[in-house]
Amino acid sequence: MESVWRRPAWAQGDVLAYGGDYCPEQWPEAVWAEDFRLMEEAGVNLVTVGVFAWARLQPAPGRWDFGWLDRVLDGLAEHRIAVCLATATASPPPWLTAAHPEIQLVRADGVRLSHGSRQGWCPSSAAYKDAALELAEQVAGRYAGHPALALWHISNELGCHNPVCYCDESAARFRVWLEDRYETVENLNLAWGTDFWSQRLSAWEEVLPPRTTSYFGNPAHLNDYVRFSSDELRGQLQAEAALLRQLAPDVPVTTNFMLPGRWRSLDYGAWAADVDVVANDHYTLSDDPRPHVAVALAADASRGVGGGRPWLLMEHAASAVSWQKANRAKTPGEMRRNSLAHIAHGAEGALFFQWRAAVAGAERYHSAMLPHAGADSDQFRAVAALGADLAKLAPIAGSTVAAPIGLVVDRDSWAASLRPTLPSAFLDYGAALREWYEALWDAHLTCDVIPSTADFNSYKVLVTPHWQLLDAAEAQRLRDFVEQGGHLVATYFTGVADRCDQVVTGGYPGALRDLLGVRVEEFRPLLEGQEVKLSDGTAGRLWTEPVKLAGATAAAFYVSGPSAGFPAVTRAERGAGVAWYVSTQLNPAGLGEFADRVADEAAVPRIDAPADVEITVRRGAEALYTFVINHSAEAVALKFDGVDLLTGDTGPVMAVPAGDVRVVEQALR
Amino acid sequence: MESVWRRPAWAQGDVLAYGGDYCPEQWPEAVWAEDFRLMEEAGVNLVTVGVFAWARLQPAPGRWDFGWLDRVLDGLAEHRIAVCLATATASPPPWLTAAHPEIQLVRADGVRLSHGSRQGWCPSSAAYKDAALELAEQVAGRYAGHPALALWHISNELGCHNPVCYCDESAARFRVWLEDRYETVENLNLAWGTDFWSQRLSAWEEVLPPRTTSYFGNPAHLNDYVRFSSDELRGQLQAEAALLRQLAPDVPVTTNFMLPGRWRSLDYGAWAADVDVVANDHYTLSDDPRPHVAVALAADASRGVGGGRPWLLMEHAASAVSWQKANRAKTPGEMRRNSLAHIAHGAEGALFFQWRAAVAGAERYHSAMLPHAGADSDQFRAVAALGADLAKLAPIAGSTVAAPIGLVVDRDSWAASLRPTLPSAFLDYGAALREWYEALWDAHLTCDVIPSTADFNSYKVLVTPHWQLLDAAEAQRLRDFVEQGGHLVATYFTGVADRCDQVVTGGYPGALRDLLGVRVEEFRPLLEGQEVKLSDGTAGRLWTEPVKLAGATAAAFYVSGPSAGFPAVTRAERGAGVAWYVSTQLNPAGLGEFADRVADEAAVPRIDAPADVEITVRRGAEALYTFVINHSAEAVALKFDGVDLLTGDTGPVMAVPAGDVRVVEQALR
Amino acid sequence: MESVWRRPAWAQGDVLAYGGDYCPEQWPEAVWAEDFRLMEEAGVNLVTVGVFAWARLQPAPGRWDFGWLDRVLDGLAEHRIAVCLATATASPPPWLTAAHPEIQLVRADGVRLSHGSRQGWCPSSAAYKDAALELAEQVAGRYAGHPALALWHISNELGCHNPVCYCDESAARFRVWLEDRYETVENLNLAWGTDFWSQRLSAWEEVLPPRTTSYFGNPAHLNDYVRFSSDELRGQLQAEAALLRQLAPDVPVTTNFMLPGRWRSLDYGAWAADVDVVANDHYTLSDDPRPHVAVALAADASRGVGGGRPWLLMEHAASAVSWQKANRAKTPGEMRRNSLAHIAHGAEGALFFQWRAAVAGAERYHSAMLPHAGADSDQFRAVAALGADLAKLAPIAGSTVAAPIGLVVDRDSWAASLRPTLPSAFLDYGAALREWYEALWDAHLTCDVIPSTADFNSYKVLVTPHWQLLDAAEAQRLRDFVEQGGHLVATYFTGVADRCDQVVTGGYPGALRDLLGVRVEEFRPLLEGQEVKLSDGTAGRLWTEPVKLAGATAAAFYVSGPSAGFPAVTRAERGAGVAWYVSTQLNPAGLGEFADRVADEAAVPRIDAPADVEITVRRGAEALYTFVINHSAEAVALKFDGVDLLTGDTGPVMAVPAGDVRVVEQALR
Repeated sequence: MESVWRRPAWAQGDVLAYGGDYCPEQWPEAVWAEDFRLMEEAGVNLVTVGVFAWARLQPAPGRWDFGWLDRVLDGLAEHRIAVCLATATASPPPWLTAAHPEIQLVRADGVRLSHGSRQGWCPSSAAYKDAALELAEQVAGRYAGHPALALWHISNELGCHNPVCYCDESAARFRVWLEDRYETVENLNLAWGTDFWSQRLSAWEEVLPPRTTSYFGNPAHLNDYVRFSSDELRGQLQAEAALLRQLAPDVPVTTNFMLPGRWRSLDYGAWAADVDVVANDHYTLSDDPRPHVAVALAADASRGVGGGRPWLLMEHAASAVSWQKANRAKTPGEMRRNSLAHIAHGAEGALFFQWRAAVAGAERYHSAMLPHAGADSDQFRAVAALGADLAKLAPIAGSTVAAPIGLVVDRDSWAASLRPTLPSAFLDYGAALREWYEALWDAHLTCDVIPSTADFNSYKVLVTPHWQLLDAAEAQRLRDFVEQGGHLVATYFTGVADRCDQVVTGGYPGALRDLLGVRVEEFRPLLEGQEVKLSDGTAGRLWTEPVKLAGATAAAFYVSGPSAGFPAVTRAERGAGVAWYVSTQLNPAGLGEFADRVADEAAVPRIDAPADVEITVRRGAEALYTFVINHSAEAVALKFDGVDLLTGDTGPVMAVPAGDVRVVEQALR
Repeated sequence: MESVWRRPAWAQGDVLAYGGDYCPEQWPEAVWAEDFRLMEEAGVNLVTVGVFAWARLQPAPGRWDFGWLDRVLDGLAEHRIAVCLATATASPPPWLTAAHPEIQLVRADGVRLSHGSRQGWCPSSAAYKDAALELAEQVAGRYAGHPALALWHISNELGCHNPVCYCDESAARFRVWLEDRYETVENLNLAWGTDFWSQRLSAWEEVLPPRTTSYFGNPAHLNDYVRFSSDELRGQLQAEAALLRQLAPDVPVTTNFMLPGRWRSLDYGAWAADVDVVANDHYTLSDDPRPHVAVALAADASRGVGGGRPWLLMEHAASAVSWQKANRAKTPGEMRRNSLAHIAHGAEGALFFQWRAAVAGAERYHSAMLPHAGADSDQFRAVAALGADLAKLAPIAGSTVAAPIGLVVDRDSWAASLRPTLPSAFLDYGAALREWYEALWDAHLTCDVIPSTADFNSYKVLVTPHWQLLDAAEAQRLRDFVEQGGHLVATYFTGVADRCDQVVTGGYPGALRDLLGVRVEEFRPLLEGQEVKLSDGTAGRLWTEPVKLAGATAAAFYVSGPSAGFPAVTRAERGAGVAWYVSTQLNPAGLGEFADRVADEAAVPRIDAPADVEITVRRGAEALYTFVINHSAEAVALKFDGVDLLTGDTGPVMAVPAGDVRVVEQALR
Repeated sequence: MESVWRRPAWAQGDVLAYGGDYCPEQWPEAVWAEDFRLMEEAGVNLVTVGVFAWARLQPAPGRWDFGWLDRVLDGLAEHRIAVCLATATASPPPWLTAAHPEIQLVRADGVRLSHGSRQGWCPSSAAYKDAALELAEQVAGRYAGHPALALWHISNELGCHNPVCYCDESAARFRVWLEDRYETVENLNLAWGTDFWSQRLSAWEEVLPPRTTSYFGNPAHLNDYVRFSSDELRGQLQAEAALLRQLAPDVPVTTNFMLPGRWRSLDYGAWAADVDVVANDHYTLSDDPRPHVAVALAADASRGVGGGRPWLLMEHAASAVSWQKANRAKTPGEMRRNSLAHIAHGAEGALFFQWRAAVAGAERYHSAMLPHAGADSDQFRAVAALGADLAKLAPIAGSTVAAPIGLVVDRDSWAASLRPTLPSAFLDYGAALREWYEALWDAHLTCDVIPSTADFNSYKVLVTPHWQLLDAAEAQRLRDFVEQGGHLVATYFTGVADRCDQVVTGGYPGALRDLLGVRVEEFRPLLEGQEVKLSDGTAGRLWTEPVKLAGATAAAFYVSGPSAGFPAVTRAERGAGVAWYVSTQLNPAGLGEFADRVADEAAVPRIDAPADVEITVRRGAEALYTFVINHSAEAVALKFDGVDLLTGDTGPVMAVPAGDVRVVEQALR
């Protein structure tokens, strides 16, 4: 197996990446020596350099200053620390936006953003793109052969703050994008349904970005603008990648995704094809009562968008962040469990934002591997201990995770769910995704979180929350999946409209009506806080439907609420498989029971483990690696056959203290 | 009696209107035949056509396409379905706003709205008005004599999304409007009290719209801008009406009001004089615990603005809408009760938005008579059953409702109540109106909801919540009403200022002090959630006053709160009548007891009926028609003399199941 | 001792100021005579005239109309009422902003405010400044020698609605301000830490105001913009003051501050040096459960910014205001207690906004000395009674309050605390200030609320909540204070960064680590609503820290929450003094116990009094004046030696009814 990065010459055998963002430009050179020394002490072997260094690398048009970066890279190489080198295009310097104000993003209300934060560029700006590619070319040309170079880091969190721009330059490019897609204005009128509200267009020139309007906009217009904007950002990714591949053909490229949250607008399923390594940034939320579930979900999505490829955790936090309301510090052990959980779910290493805590700027209170307190700190000691752990886990490098269940994310549907004019504004795609994921996680079921474009063949079960926009061909793919033995779990508000957001008539859920064997004549959403009881003792909220059976059988009925007496959950056998329909947002108990039942019917192998003990298996060429992460407050004892790479313990009974982790290696016979 | 619309040739005898908005332009022509067939099946006899068809009717400047509309109207006539034909001016097409960006409304902060929704035009735009009148002339010229034509529908929900514009063109017209009203700048300075905060104007040119300012604006300035903006919209209504009356003198004109909510800024009391038929659009709110009370209020306001004339329900929803947070579907029977309640309160028919559910656009999840599921649906069956009911109710056409009580709405005061710089921002004109109305409804008292400009002579009781801005002449009208035997119920924050929003000094409630026989030296509003007890066991919230008696007697005292010990409710005999003052927001129990007492004193005839059973009487030339709508969850049995038009039952005891309706015809002797 | 105003010729002996804002321009001249008569009746001896009279004084460029003001001042002089005369520059007239739209403030999002409220001018506008100084020169030139003139009132509540402007003119002046401060762009880059996020500047021209950006701005940039904006406003104050001092050298100047709230951005500690008399405007909040504590805090801050000088209460409310949500009317006696409390804490009089209630404009529902109801009102009678009280208190004029405790406010830190990117957005500088103040108030401890630049030498105890930005020299000042015997109470988030907002490394609390004898490696803020228990039975919220002792001893430990087991409160002896560190937001019980303990240790004399009985001592040349204000609902009896100036009672036991006030004069022996 191969590493996800170009292994530097000094690397012997397998190795997991360990390190973080490193911003030497923020520090006097005198500090660098201490950085290198402490990195070595902590087991750091990969650092990301230069992400926000444009203003330092190019102090003025045509002027370049690479000397300091030469010294940084030389120093790192000397200390056997590889570099994930940024193209440095993420944030243009003040002189550039001063010369080209049109680079700055324009909001829907016409306000052009001011310089003074980061990444405020319009994704369609030609002036930005020209300058960025000139910079990338300089960087790539200079460092393509540098011995420290292991991986290219394109831009940074593309679209994080500039997912959509409403300027005239964007408008012009949007028209071109639409013409490519629809060819004629008449096709566009049909696709957007412009005969509604007198919106019929007579010429391409009349197309505008969905700027601030008097009332609700056209949903198809809004859908296409999200798609266009994602494609514009992807265009930047592709342009930089092409340039890097030309100048340094043997160095892999990556960019850091923001899974799962930004999947709501960015088409990561497609973008994954543009990078050699999928990388992800993930931060837990202070008010998440179970942040470890969010970690697992993000990791399974990172693996899922790349089709199961090994991937890299490019950023996570050593402790607190500084952009939430109350920025909770991680508890002792939490950082280690987070890092190892990402690896358990397929990451080829764990990197942090960032190496050394900044003292200035908007992120000065963001935690780091090396905190403000310095090396004499519990934080740094924990970082060094984790580095030692990762060194012990080197054998797992290149191993992969196989999942019997696919949890399907449809970017278009997620984006569409965020807008008004739906039956309920309480529809929450992200929350539904998390709730389904959490039910699977609690049932110790391993799943891939995959784009709706993924190949479904390898899965026994597919769960598709809120796949609102679904074409006939996709309905056919799902039918094929089921008829060939798959188990499909479709939820309310799945399959109701096509990709143009035009409702499929004849009864909901439109294109899936026959497959699911149900017919629904109207949605009956619940008010905020309202709950309905089901006949199996569970409950639902947010949504109900008076489901009528048309081939399916009822698995549970509503016994209260506006759809009382109607089936709530149905089951239809189709070919060799089963198609389920869940017409309400089940409560956790309901989701849990349902997950168990589906897994049993689909003969998905179950891992028997106590609650809150996460068990994940990576398969290597010659061994299985079972991660046991005890998130509970109780020590557990599990039977295992093998040896714990972290402690050297062998079985047959493995004690895992509360908060601790084991990684059991078991040779494949 | 005459119908509210020009009865087409085929209509025999009386008939109630039944139908809805029909948008054939959104569908292939092949669908139209099914539409016509199903309309007939459902008993539809009137559809509104063309509301948002401008872009189809005029695809480009000077180009007209009426062929499709010809075919629609011919087909409808063939199926004996009359047409309420829109002037189609509601939403300009993209080519028009592209050519004239100044048509688009400008917000208070200077943002000019973008095209892409609906009805975003500036009410003062000359370019809009020119184009709209050209269109209306084309439509009227072509269809004035069409056999399907029954009624003209001007624009659509005028001011729904464009009640106020802040552009320079509006500013210029505002100055002209002010000059007409005040003649000199000095008069304007006096009326607006510009010596406050150095706002004295030295020339008309210095007058601006009340755009975004550093702090609170001048209330008189704000009042006049609401009046001006309503007048600008009314100007469009009048211009279209004049044109239609010239081209088709025998066809009545209407436009759809949005009562009661938009009365807060639009002067519907005045607008009613511009239309031959008052029409209203009404939608219930998903979180309204008693939506049927809202229906009754809207209906009584529709009757009230027209001075008791028969009116038309132009839009309501068959089930859920799509613009609220959680869009609750109507329960079985609710649509029928809503429709019949409007008719019970004086509507000459019930129309829906819309006939066939759209599949595209921002309202694709809005319910319709013919839902996405098609004709094989409970919804469509209920629609057809309701059509059959309405056919049975044909005898009531032209009958009217007489009310002994007037609930007075003052547009200026409502508008003024929505702004800051009042004693309490929790003042809620709309809520107070609803609470007073609900108390009367619960007491089975019939009232007209009337503009403050209405003739008060026919009423025994007037209730005037929050009539804040009240001139001396109006105070005299109220005094005359009372002295001639009327019973006036004035509430806190009534009569405190004149129409220029200048406080009447000497003690509150200013111009009404003598009539009410009280004097108040200061307001003592309550904090959010605070409640005070009254001596009669009821309670108040939101507001109290240390009322001092000056001719009145106390009917109840405050026993807690900041005005403890002072009278809370007072009663003064004046001439042959009585003037009440209610100085707090009574709780429902307090309002109920008060309503009973006033009705008894005023000898208002009371209907004896169980709770939540709504009873309304329409009087025809030869018979009384008593509607009994059972909104309760229990069946009731009532004694009645007559015959139920819906079931054919005769008395003497009439059983009304929970949720059901009876319409008893009783011949006048 | 001298009066704070130029005593008019008729004033004999000492006198406290009594009166309010007087706006004769809003009334016909016929009303003025009644004003003068009622003022005399109420004991008014000082009124503020002309604050918003610019539009009347200068109806057009170059045209002046002073006749009416001559008559007003002559009339007041005739009635022996002195005048605090405004320069009238607060709000420019419409003709001026119409001619110079660039005067109007621009928001961060680029929206230029419209004329139509008040005080919307850009603090950096040259056109505004030129016109304002021309006006001030005219006013000063005309009235410098007028016999009514006692005090100049510059502008009004400078910065109330225009604390910051983002226009290009501001940008240009900001660059000059920065160049003055930093000299070179490189220095600026270092100070702002621009190597973060590629924000490095290459020229002054690239500096922009902190307008709307894509994400968080640079905190140092934001800090400097607050400082710059405060300095621009101060520039206006200084320019007007210089002009007045030149034209009327013997008349003192003042302007009305808005303490304590606006201290968050305006550098009142510095501004106090520009005025001869510190004046303050203070309004209580309707939902403040203990508004009298807010009064005391505001008063102690007014005294504190002026270094203990006598000061003037320029505005407070007779009863309700009109800009809050529910504007609570004051209870009977509350106005009197408020006024006398300000005087108890050092005010040389009590003035109101305003004399006569306006009938027009945005403040028509704001209470006044003479309400809408007129002189026949409880309000006016209470005003007249208070005037009589103040006349009896004339002997206290010129006396001062001495406080052993300094509660330190750092403007920079307050401003910085209001922004995101801190460890917790729930940090609330104003709330912490109030909570600490309230604990001292409840313990009957007298404190000065002082700027961080104040001389600390006179204090036994210093309390420094959230002094986030603190330079090494300031740390040294605090060390000197402690070593010389002072008791310092530092709280969490004090001393963590320098004045450039750059974190001091090595462990928190940075520059104070050694002095406090603690070291903290990370902050552990609490979630909203979360509470932690301490070992002494008290509790904390909002924040915790795993404090490690480095010379201090623990006074209390955390027993729950994320820092359980670590010290929560520590104490370190340093030289002759003690340095405390409080690492959480103690609950009121905790603050109370702590305040007692610190006061005892520091040997601060304690006043023994019942709860909610406020006791304050003013020291004159020959007597002590002890104010006893009974805010409780119970009568109290206190032993006193002296005579009550209000009632004439002599001791030894003084009964103070609930809600009443005593002012005991005790001769100094």
